[in-house]
Amino acid sequence: MEKVLSGMRPTGRLHIGHYYGALKNWLELQEKHDCFYFVADWHALTTNYEDPEDIIENRRQLILDWLSVGIDPNKCTMFVQSHNIYHAELSLLLSMLTPVSWLERCPTYKEIKQEQTNKDLSNLGFLSYPVLMTADIIMYNATYVPVGEDQLPHIEISREIIRRFHHLYSCEVFTEPKGVLTEVPRLPGLDGRKMSKSYGNAIMLSEDLKEVESKVKKMVTDTNRQRLKDPGNPEVCPVFDYHKVFSTEEEREYITKGCTSAGIGCMECKMILFKHMQALLEPIQERRRKFEAEITDINEFIKPMQDKANAEAACMMEKVRKALKI
Amino acid sequence: MEKVLSGMRPTGRLHIGHYYGALKNWLELQEKHDCFYFVADWHALTTNYEDPEDIIENRRQLILDWLSVGIDPNKCTMFVQSHNIYHAELSLLLSMLTPVSWLERCPTYKEIKQEQTNKDLSNLGFLSYPVLMTADIIMYNATYVPVGEDQLPHIEISREIIRRFHHLYSCEVFTEPKGVLTEVPRLPGLDGRKMSKSYGNAIMLSEDLKEVESKVKKMVTDTNRQRLKDPGNPEVCPVFDYHKVFSTEEEREYITKGCTSAGIGCMECKMILFKHMQALLEPIQERRRKFEAEITDINEFIKPMQDKANAEAACMMEKVRKALKI
Repeated sequence: MEKVLSGMRPTGRLHIGHYYGALKNWLELQEKHDCFYFVADWHALTTNYEDPEDIIENRRQLILDWLSVGIDPNKCTMFVQSHNIYHAELSLLLSMLTPVSWLERCPTYKEIKQEQTNKDLSNLGFLSYPVLMTADIIMYNATYVPVGEDQLPHIEISREIIRRFHHLYSCEVFTEPKGVLTEVPRLPGLDGRKMSKSYGNAIMLSEDLKEVESKVKKMVTDTNRQRLKDPGNPEVCPVFDYHKVFSTEEEREYITKGCTSAGIGCMECKMILFKHMQALLEPIQERRRKFEAEITDINEFIKPMQDKANAEAACMMEKVRKALKI
Repeated sequence: MEKVLSGMRPTGRLHIGHYYGALKNWLELQEKHDCFYFVADWHALTTNYEDPEDIIENRRQLILDWLSVGIDPNKCTMFVQSHNIYHAELSLLLSMLTPVSWLERCPTYKEIKQEQTNKDLSNLGFLSYPVLMTADIIMYNATYVPVGEDQLPHIEISREIIRRFHHLYSCEVFTEPKGVLTEVPRLPGLDGRKMSKSYGNAIMLSEDLKEVESKVKKMVTDTNRQRLKDPGNPEVCPVFDYHKVFSTEEEREYITKGCTSAGIGCMECKMILFKHMQALLEPIQERRRKFEAEITDINEFIKPMQDKANAEAACMMEKVRKALKI
């Protein structure tokens, strides 16, 4: 069975953007592949070393979010990166043969450094990040790595590092991974900007449904439709972006007709959306309550999976050390 | 008791230059400090990744050389760096808070890159080397690090990394190390150039004494003294550099007088030197034979020391992770 590896940084509870952007795909992948899903807490430090958020609590919340959407311990392997220090060893060994220039010319390296002007990203860990990510992937011989488009250059670096390793040490230890682009529907924040917890425009998977309802009711709509009798334009309305993801075709037709003819109000349109959100979130939250009640120690809970990942990593490191004759 | 940390790369058997340059000092240090001496095999990879020498056999030879000069398992802790992967974890964590510029502007980084034109040193591992070295040192809260002058900038980087760590995470976890310059006598190679195994101008600690005698006899001397009746100049003679290290003051006076007056021949002068070398090397080689006969598995032999180092490292990593709240 082919292997899949994917990770998320423990930066807080997940929102519905994460669900449609990644978790929905993870759910499908766990049905047909041998999936390794890991909490990328060292990755979080590469950019947040100055003020690490509450990583320990966030690790717990992240795994609870995974469990609550249906990521299944019987079907895949969930583990914490920093609890598997072989990743650090492999990353160190790969750093020996990785040219600094490959990292410096990585497009995301320059872009993020320029964008994140509020952070000092001149640290070695941020430069070296693609090497650590390579270690994560090739440790398990993952074939598929579901990624966003911005991560594709990192997969390419992984492939180059593998080829260089095989060439230098005349061996075939690793599998070259393929980055798999997840088709992500456009799901803006409630105010039309990018959805982000820090903008306060996101709906969290674990958010109280009363709160969700109130947030949906306050969503920004087509700003040209100021009165009920003004006709609206769904194509510029953030709420309609959500209907494209959540609602049926019939509902979208009904809404389009009603909105453009001023036949229905924004509140009716939003309540159709909320009904679907509720249908998505209710079972997720029920599962979360169950796991929250069951799990007192999250490390204990994931231990069998962590042990499995660590054992596979130990086995891979034997091969790597043998190839390097160290 | 204050701690000392020092390492050597496993690049082959040691020669008398290593003895006077480092091991003699190690012997003194083990009498009064808690010394950690480690085989820096990951360090060797930072520059030799393209063609790693026989690291496994060299590790064994290095430890045998240490034992043969009198480094004592009852007095100090000898261990192998790559068998203590906490060093990789700490190095990774320190990389998060180390600015790349600190590493780029390190004088040895530029110099060695320019000097070693036969090697491709554009690799990340070579750039990051001072971070790994910092991890090695601060893992054991070493106070003293015996170093050559070229290593002093690395100690300075270690101190800066520690200060930044303490400042960022409001803690006091590490001890700032001091680099201690070892007074190294000038001991050139047998041909007057720098002593180096690769030049074939070195006398190995484990070299057969017949071979040593033959090498000493062939040593380059004052090139202006071509015949026995020509007076020589000890100050330009490599053999006399050795007498400064090996012989007594009376012998040096006798030689100076005899050489400058053409009263003694080079062979007599060299045999005085050989007598002292023999006195140094014989007990070393006897000890080596004893250890070679005793030790079938070098890893097994150092295991109690390795375990001790690893346990101390594990303990330190608990503190580090706690400080980082990871």
